[in-house]
Amino acid sequence: MFFVRNHLPVPVIDPKKYQLTVTKVGSTKQVNLSLEDLKRKFNKKSVVSIVQCAGNRRSEMVTIKPVKGLNWGAAAISNASWAGACLDDVLKRTGIDIETVDAKHIIFDGADADPTGHNYGASIPIEMARLLKKDIILAYEMNGKDIPPDHGYPVRVIIPGVVGARQVKWLNKITLSDKESTCHWQQKDYKGFHSSIDWHNVDFTSVPPIYELPVQSVICEPEAGSVLEDDEEVTIKGYAWSGGGRGIVRVDLSADGGKTWHSAELSPTEQPLYKTYAWTFWEGTIPLPKDHKGEVEIVCKAADTAYNVQPDNVEGIWNLRGVLSNAWHRVPVKVPKS
Amino acid sequence: MFFVRNHLPVPVIDPKKYQLTVTKVGSTKQVNLSLEDLKRKFNKKSVVSIVQCAGNRRSEMVTIKPVKGLNWGAAAISNASWAGACLDDVLKRTGIDIETVDAKHIIFDGADADPTGHNYGASIPIEMARLLKKDIILAYEMNGKDIPPDHGYPVRVIIPGVVGARQVKWLNKITLSDKESTCHWQQKDYKGFHSSIDWHNVDFTSVPPIYELPVQSVICEPEAGSVLEDDEEVTIKGYAWSGGGRGIVRVDLSADGGKTWHSAELSPTEQPLYKTYAWTFWEGTIPLPKDHKGEVEIVCKAADTAYNVQPDNVEGIWNLRGVLSNAWHRVPVKVPKS
Repeated sequence: MFFVRNHLPVPVIDPKKYQLTVTKVGSTKQVNLSLEDLKRKFNKKSVVSIVQCAGNRRSEMVTIKPVKGLNWGAAAISNASWAGACLDDVLKRTGIDIETVDAKHIIFDGADADPTGHNYGASIPIEMARLLKKDIILAYEMNGKDIPPDHGYPVRVIIPGVVGARQVKWLNKITLSDKESTCHWQQKDYKGFHSSIDWHNVDFTSVPPIYELPVQSVICEPEAGSVLEDDEEVTIKGYAWSGGGRGIVRVDLSADGGKTWHSAELSPTEQPLYKTYAWTFWEGTIPLPKDHKGEVEIVCKAADTAYNVQPDNVEGIWNLRGVLSNAWHRVPVKVPKS
Repeated sequence: MFFVRNHLPVPVIDPKKYQLTVTKVGSTKQVNLSLEDLKRKFNKKSVVSIVQCAGNRRSEMVTIKPVKGLNWGAAAISNASWAGACLDDVLKRTGIDIETVDAKHIIFDGADADPTGHNYGASIPIEMARLLKKDIILAYEMNGKDIPPDHGYPVRVIIPGVVGARQVKWLNKITLSDKESTCHWQQKDYKGFHSSIDWHNVDFTSVPPIYELPVQSVICEPEAGSVLEDDEEVTIKGYAWSGGGRGIVRVDLSADGGKTWHSAELSPTEQPLYKTYAWTFWEGTIPLPKDHKGEVEIVCKAADTAYNVQPDNVEGIWNLRGVLSNAWHRVPVKVPKS
């Protein structure tokens, strides 16, 4: 199961006619690659990576003030094994060396278009492409099979550690440029503002686009409102993740709303320092407060390898687009009366 | 002015007798370099970088529960221009290629020793040394002059974006190893635990050492308790910084304890994506609440380029060593009665 978030209708692409165009602004050279070219002319490279929508857990922000966007719970994040050609290899074969190219951004355009003919698109800064270069993949496989239509068939770009919005589906053009993508979702969306900025006073040019996402952890079990099995302890399970490939060093659990904390067991325990692109699962069994009155609030929060932590409350991070919702995850549950 | 934090007495080192030893565990080869060697045989490289003590703002944690450590306000952080030989160049000249060397950590030992003869030391993972390799400096100059004795004369290592504790002063040995430094400050200090871990139940092996520090912002003016000049607005100034070279995308200011936010002006506005090692200054003039009763709480918080934010309250991040204190900075001030 993998979450689906598309901004425009899913395009139907004939794999025999598929073409990926690679070019650079100001250059007359343009290279076209077929799906077969991507599969046969380049080594197949795999990466296991989360894709997370910036609007994951937006539903918690909605409880403070309305926001624009889909009312996501904590499920706008999924993990898969992706395989395809390495962006760096493809650029090299088309005469572009990512280390020396005279460009500031790499623009990705999708085949999905709005009624006026504008395509979905996004870009990343060239420094990001350099840092991640061996791990950015023009993926034609998801979990060992063709990528399903909803996820970008036949080719999408996978940029580990970066917000889903930049990992363009139905990828059909890569452009090296001195400018960012001019696309709506790059310029007028997916940016983080403080809680007093609303649609009347927002200046989208005042902050950069969201690329890396901040540290996140979520309780998956038990669900909100569920009745626990006993009144002495609770087993809690969930996931944690951080952007930029940062691993998870700690997940803290509380059954008294954050007064007392316990440590969760992490899986995997060993994580690469800068390339933890997959999520971390965690689990812990912790005591319930003795003075509970039939209801308790269970809470989790994580710290990543840069010791970034989650903010305590959603009020302080509320923003008009309901993105970057990573406050402590609080889940109210019912406790049986003994 | 630059803060001073030393764990052991400042050693007196004769610059003519100074030697830096470079070696690898398991190798019989050992290279000794004099101060003149470092100055003459290698290009001089500069970097402007913060050094921050992990205990900066520990005094706020002390208000919750006692912690071990110096009672720092928000001044255990300073910025300087450092110059010296690049670690990568020095290792290369001694026959060690940082990209291919068979080692997991780089250990730095200082000349400062405790009464039993144990020296101060620290290490960083080899991946960190690779990522930062051109920016790690064996510095013999601070702001264009010899490094003062308190700051590591004649040589200290500068590792931008990383906690001060790993940037060993009076550096006299560099060792490539499969193991971390066995030093007290690497193994039994400078790690981040949750608020319910105390000296009775702490297991120092359960989390990795602090390397990169999380995002931080601090109000420098006005100071706590000061009386403002007028009762309609306040001009607030301060610094912000994040670990790992991440820049600052936003600083938010509030004069009502965090209910309403305003944007500060940042300086510099243009920041490199992964190499913002110096601090960011910020300033803003914001309205005071009309219904103030002679006192207001001014607050700042920052977001970095990975959209990491500061936690709301110090309670949630309190830890036994009083490190990583980066909650919203809250400063109570008095307002003249009009």
